[in-house]
Amino acid sequence: MKAIVHVMLKDGVLDPQGEAVRHALAALGFDGVEGVRQGKVIEIDLADGESPEAAEERVTRMCDKLLANTVIESYRVEIA
Amino acid sequence: MKAIVHVMLKDGVLDPQGEAVRHALAALGFDGVEGVRQGKVIEIDLADGESPEAAEERVTRMCDKLLANTVIESYRVEIA
Repeated sequence: MKAIVHVMLKDGVLDPQGEAVRHALAALGFDGVEGVRQGKVIEIDLADGESPEAAEERVTRMCDKLLANTVIESYRVEIA
Repeated sequence: MKAIVHVMLKDGVLDPQGEAVRHALAALGFDGVEGVRQGKVIEIDLADGESPEAAEERVTRMCDKLLANTVIESYRVEIA
């Protein structure tokens, strides 16, 4: 089973990486880019033999403990 | 219009970040994690007034020019 975790900075938290990308795109001549936010995507291969619900609960705990800094980041778990 | 770009290391390319996460999860007691790959997700706000097809083509060019290193990374563009 595969879990896909998206971790993004929360709205309102300054995103210097995203800003750098926005400036670089403008410098390359790409117009109309109004904002860029950069986050992480983490693909986790889980051993089989677990229900999707149990896997989602476990991956959510992984996010809270390690994968995301919940003070400034939000995350979304997808079980595929 | 919003474009979401996923950039992942290609299969076979060593992913030290993912490996570090896998080890950390094991150290925290999460069993059954067989592999972890870490990539980037980039959310781009585009000015309206462009067709989704044109936007996708433009974002694909952004990926080739700046957002992904196509030697070692693959990307996927989603227009939302």
